[in-house]
Amino acid sequence: MALEDAFANFTRRDWEDEPVEGTVRLAVIGVGGFARQRALPAIADGRYCESTTLVTSSPERAADVAEEYGISHVIDYDAFLDGDGADAYDAVYVATPNALHGRYAIAAAERGNHVICEKPLETTLERTQEIVDACADAGVTLMPAYRLQTEPTVRRARDLIRDGVIGDVVQVHGGFSHPLLESAGPDTWRLDPELAGGGALVDLGIYPLNTTRFILDAEPTGVYATTHSSGEPFDAVEEHIAFQLEFERGATASCTASLDAHASSQLDLIGTEGKIHIESPFGGVVPQEMVVESGDVRMEYTGPPVDEVCEEFDYFGYCVLTDTDPEPDGEDGLTDLRAIEAAYESAETGRRVGVA
Amino acid sequence: MALEDAFANFTRRDWEDEPVEGTVRLAVIGVGGFARQRALPAIADGRYCESTTLVTSSPERAADVAEEYGISHVIDYDAFLDGDGADAYDAVYVATPNALHGRYAIAAAERGNHVICEKPLETTLERTQEIVDACADAGVTLMPAYRLQTEPTVRRARDLIRDGVIGDVVQVHGGFSHPLLESAGPDTWRLDPELAGGGALVDLGIYPLNTTRFILDAEPTGVYATTHSSGEPFDAVEEHIAFQLEFERGATASCTASLDAHASSQLDLIGTEGKIHIESPFGGVVPQEMVVESGDVRMEYTGPPVDEVCEEFDYFGYCVLTDTDPEPDGEDGLTDLRAIEAAYESAETGRRVGVA
Repeated sequence: MALEDAFANFTRRDWEDEPVEGTVRLAVIGVGGFARQRALPAIADGRYCESTTLVTSSPERAADVAEEYGISHVIDYDAFLDGDGADAYDAVYVATPNALHGRYAIAAAERGNHVICEKPLETTLERTQEIVDACADAGVTLMPAYRLQTEPTVRRARDLIRDGVIGDVVQVHGGFSHPLLESAGPDTWRLDPELAGGGALVDLGIYPLNTTRFILDAEPTGVYATTHSSGEPFDAVEEHIAFQLEFERGATASCTASLDAHASSQLDLIGTEGKIHIESPFGGVVPQEMVVESGDVRMEYTGPPVDEVCEEFDYFGYCVLTDTDPEPDGEDGLTDLRAIEAAYESAETGRRVGVA
Repeated sequence: MALEDAFANFTRRDWEDEPVEGTVRLAVIGVGGFARQRALPAIADGRYCESTTLVTSSPERAADVAEEYGISHVIDYDAFLDGDGADAYDAVYVATPNALHGRYAIAAAERGNHVICEKPLETTLERTQEIVDACADAGVTLMPAYRLQTEPTVRRARDLIRDGVIGDVVQVHGGFSHPLLESAGPDTWRLDPELAGGGALVDLGIYPLNTTRFILDAEPTGVYATTHSSGEPFDAVEEHIAFQLEFERGATASCTASLDAHASSQLDLIGTEGKIHIESPFGGVVPQEMVVESGDVRMEYTGPPVDEVCEEFDYFGYCVLTDTDPEPDGEDGLTDLRAIEAAYESAETGRRVGVA
């Protein structure tokens, strides 16, 4: 593929053969900041999903957002588990704290609902396996909500690498930092290890981890990690993490994540014949600035941004409507959990830990 | 310091109180590509050094370059060790293969010559200590040739960090890759472990290692490294390395180096309150593009490039003429060797290794 071809029609939905009829009706489980600010608007803007139900611990506090999006069913978690109003939705979007993903995803699957679930799928490999098994047993679609996998810059980066434009990737640098306490109080569930399953790695580090796996189309074979916390309120989960992944065929990814630093993200892929830089890939709004060097040629793409969350829900809806397996699947979620657990073991022991 | 103040008079020589009289006469030992293409022109362009002698294994092959720079003394290594023409120079610039640095640096020191020596100072900590001791015993100046330490972008980055403009640095990403075989044959000394002391780490990785130490003004406490080679001609030294340094006060640096990838370099410093990006810092010509974010403010500097090699030799000359200790000193060289040896031990054992 010539560089120009990859950059032409940059935001194309290569996953959509042709538009299909129909809409997947969603119950949005957990109405926190991301659901309000990004998911609900993106679902409303998209073609293939529709929010019909909100599930929240305080239905009265969700009344405003229900009205804004014309959502008539607002129920609490117990009502959801009891199946109240279950005929109003076909699928669920699980956006609760990580440790509750399994409870609601499994209940939904057992009721025959398809599942799109925030990442990481759960807080342990064992719980993640239970979600994967429940969805497989029920024959429903399970998609981890890896929004980066429908982000055009990321898909184009993968296309370019598949086509050999930068040769073999040898080294990756990826980082994601965000000052959590500027947007959340110290009582946020993200600082509770029981609810979050970890700190900077599970909340932010999973982005460079999963995105690198996706772009390289390769799996990690080992990991080394160092964690650091300066004290309260980061005494129970790690404030900062640096981790180094080894991949099949010898590539490495040098990754960092921080819950307490300047908001920033980066992704650089260095190959034998070129490199790819994606500007601010992980923060939620990619400015669609991508620099590709291939031999002596350098090209920059600077098109208008796309709402990757809208892309993500449309991709999920399209897969459900066409009975297609989404590319991010249960196995993907399990691999991330294996890498996460190995990274924490490494941070504990100071040794490289294999990722089975 | 306000951001504007750091960017004003960006290329100032903050190390030069006022111009001084005099010139340090240099013997350039080892007339390879870097000496010919960068060092000799930079010395000629600079104010405080002058090349008066070339030391090379084949004086006849250096005749052209001697003529170009008006250098009347061209001798071979044995003649240098015998002290032939030693009254023509005050100091030596050692640019031989790494494993020969000690032989010539020590001979020069014992003769009372000051020494500027390419990095790493030697191939082992023990040999490096011998250079440091010889220079100390003789009372001569020893400066490792860390050209990045006189590079204006790097000095301004250090100023900004010292002044708290990006808060505490928590994570660094640094990388340097260069396709060695495009500029050298497979018989280059850089692929011979006896002469080079290692591969990608000692040739290229030392740049992010030393530059991060310099900018943070902190020393590494531990390192983890992974090396990878795809086979000949990289069977005796590592083709690629990824290494992760831990620093005092908890910062980490995620570094990579490759002798067999697209020419590229990067340095990003993420702090609690901001970040600094230096574009292509290590390749020899920094485009003087630097992006600083501090809170909600973003500033870019894009001034004309400065010849950092000229800065480096002028700094050395200035230190010799004013009898000032250069900032990069023997202890600096020893610390890099400690980190290098620890990194190789880590790559061998798969464990974090402390850097004493």
